[in-house]
Amino acid sequence: MLTLEMIQEAREALNGVARVTPLNEAKNLGKNVYIKAENLQKTGAFKLRGAYNKIRSLSQEERERGVIACSAGNHAQGIALSATTLGIKSVICMPAGAPLSKVEATKNYGAEVVLVPGVYDDAAKEAARLAEEKGYSFAHPFNDPYVIAGQGTIGLEILEQLPEVEQVVVPIGGGGLISGIAFAIKALKPSCKVIGVQAAGAASMYSSRQNGDILELPSVSTIADGIAVKRPGDLTFALCQKYVDEIVTVKDDEIATAILALMEDQKTVAEGAGATTVAAVMFGKVNVVDRKTVCVVSGGNVDVTTLSRVITKGLSKSGRIVEFTTKVSDKPGSLVQLLQIVSRTGANVISVNHSREGKEANVHFCLISMVLETRNAQHVDDIEQALISNGYQLLQH
Amino acid sequence: MLTLEMIQEAREALNGVARVTPLNEAKNLGKNVYIKAENLQKTGAFKLRGAYNKIRSLSQEERERGVIACSAGNHAQGIALSATTLGIKSVICMPAGAPLSKVEATKNYGAEVVLVPGVYDDAAKEAARLAEEKGYSFAHPFNDPYVIAGQGTIGLEILEQLPEVEQVVVPIGGGGLISGIAFAIKALKPSCKVIGVQAAGAASMYSSRQNGDILELPSVSTIADGIAVKRPGDLTFALCQKYVDEIVTVKDDEIATAILALMEDQKTVAEGAGATTVAAVMFGKVNVVDRKTVCVVSGGNVDVTTLSRVITKGLSKSGRIVEFTTKVSDKPGSLVQLLQIVSRTGANVISVNHSREGKEANVHFCLISMVLETRNAQHVDDIEQALISNGYQLLQH
Repeated sequence: MLTLEMIQEAREALNGVARVTPLNEAKNLGKNVYIKAENLQKTGAFKLRGAYNKIRSLSQEERERGVIACSAGNHAQGIALSATTLGIKSVICMPAGAPLSKVEATKNYGAEVVLVPGVYDDAAKEAARLAEEKGYSFAHPFNDPYVIAGQGTIGLEILEQLPEVEQVVVPIGGGGLISGIAFAIKALKPSCKVIGVQAAGAASMYSSRQNGDILELPSVSTIADGIAVKRPGDLTFALCQKYVDEIVTVKDDEIATAILALMEDQKTVAEGAGATTVAAVMFGKVNVVDRKTVCVVSGGNVDVTTLSRVITKGLSKSGRIVEFTTKVSDKPGSLVQLLQIVSRTGANVISVNHSREGKEANVHFCLISMVLETRNAQHVDDIEQALISNGYQLLQH
Repeated sequence: MLTLEMIQEAREALNGVARVTPLNEAKNLGKNVYIKAENLQKTGAFKLRGAYNKIRSLSQEERERGVIACSAGNHAQGIALSATTLGIKSVICMPAGAPLSKVEATKNYGAEVVLVPGVYDDAAKEAARLAEEKGYSFAHPFNDPYVIAGQGTIGLEILEQLPEVEQVVVPIGGGGLISGIAFAIKALKPSCKVIGVQAAGAASMYSSRQNGDILELPSVSTIADGIAVKRPGDLTFALCQKYVDEIVTVKDDEIATAILALMEDQKTVAEGAGATTVAAVMFGKVNVVDRKTVCVVSGGNVDVTTLSRVITKGLSKSGRIVEFTTKVSDKPGSLVQLLQIVSRTGANVISVNHSREGKEANVHFCLISMVLETRNAQHVDDIEQALISNGYQLLQH
């Protein structure tokens, strides 16, 4: 069972191991909005807190045998660094397709990485098998009171850094982070609301709550890979039912826009899961009018190639980049005619692509796709109108 | 003339206007390395400090007529916000090709933006003409004692935030930032070294120093657009000669790698100019062994589309992405054969592009370009060897 004392003890234990991360104003998001920057935590995510608190709670005998976990993400790095800090062996099972950068980072923190053919579930089975065979302690990523107590230390920090806080917004994957934070907040300041955010493509806690009991989703799909969890834990579900006021969901393009806003306005790098809370505020899922609101940005470990794609998606969502495809006759002068119209709208051409091989092209026509830099959604509409009124047929955009 | 009192007065004046930006440890860059995060300054760059200090120093009559500046970057936003804060009209001349995002940001801070056909020099001429015609005060981006005094407040903050600092590394464009910081540091702690960093493609202060007198470069070219300055100011040149210990240069691919490292390790977004100091440390241009070193990260206003390209460049430089182009016979099975070899090396295929139209292709052969995700430079070499030893000819990579 979780107690406030466990969270307070976790805080003591984490002193000097985890950082007290900054809590910053984020005025561009709203005058009452603050960010708790767990993306600036060591290992780039909050997971270190729970992982360390779990491992330090092991008996001497358990420590000697070592720990094992299954994760291709932040939990892996949290376990690896915690175990290494405590002088304990750690083994991490990952699905064989895990990004190279995650494998390298986990190894660099001192863990032995076992790449298991198949998907996450296969890696989890192998971890369970190895735990049995070798006597390793299995470190669950969220459904464990010590892990939850570790994450709860963020709640204590928020209350100290901003005592007048009225609302805390927290991402939910398996529910460990929000369970700990909500428990701490409600114990010390019951008037403060705690709101959870899930990715719409992985809304297992949200659906379970609607259902009144734990549901397992058949599949999950979101750019917020850190919270793509099919089934909440029984412990975290019970804690969320008791202490979380509301759960909302955000879509992938909203998350992408939030990542972009964090980069452009706050100059900070958040991963998808971490940006969900900011997305919830930006897209009106959470009311921040007259409520001092802290968004927990839970991590910053986004693959930079993913980031590249997210940037493009976010620019498109906010009307600052657009792609138009149209048909023109395949003869000299056609392209310049088209580009003159575009030029008059004030858009900047980023790329032009000719295609003569698409289904829509034939001997006399070719397809032209243009990627344009634009000011906003209105500007995109204006360009569309200009093209249509000049007789161009838009095939997609 | 610049005095320490002017810098101290600037600090008073900036209280509540500019942020005291954080000074953070950056252990991944070296155990003695710290970052002064001016990318977290309001407007996303240090320029606000000097701009505000300049404008507040204007007489009542000058204030009534308004200010004008020429900039498509951080100076524009600094002037715009400062003028608006003080209730003064501001006009910013920009070359017509300026990125839309910069134009919008400057307008949003309350300035009137005049887009001038041509390049920067044309915009500067138009600004001078308008200043003359309308009686606006011209706010120079760097060669002005009030501007320099404003930037110097960063030096005061560094000395307070890290009194044991032994070395400060500062980007140089026109030289306003480093002149102010070096003056403040040398006045209060003469033992602390001040090292300047220029982009190799815009090394006007570096060359002028070598030359012993001001030189104007015929052209500049660097991804660090914020410091792409052809000619240092006479005031800034004199101050650098007197107070700056050394100037080093960094190449564009080194800057790109530094931007990437700041994103991945520090979870922070820096523009090219801002990342030069970190590049200098990463690539051994500045000795940080046993010297507590503060890198001034001067700004974070990087166009996100540029960021996308920089990410790719940085990944390539650090051997985590590579492109191979080779010739294969244009028949079924050729591609799978090639990909099997790649697969055995453990690289992850990001994209494959066939081309039958290149100079090197003919009726029997086509060109295949593959973009691969790799672990490091050694891994890239291994793949290259595997391809060559299997008889593939590499056309470029």
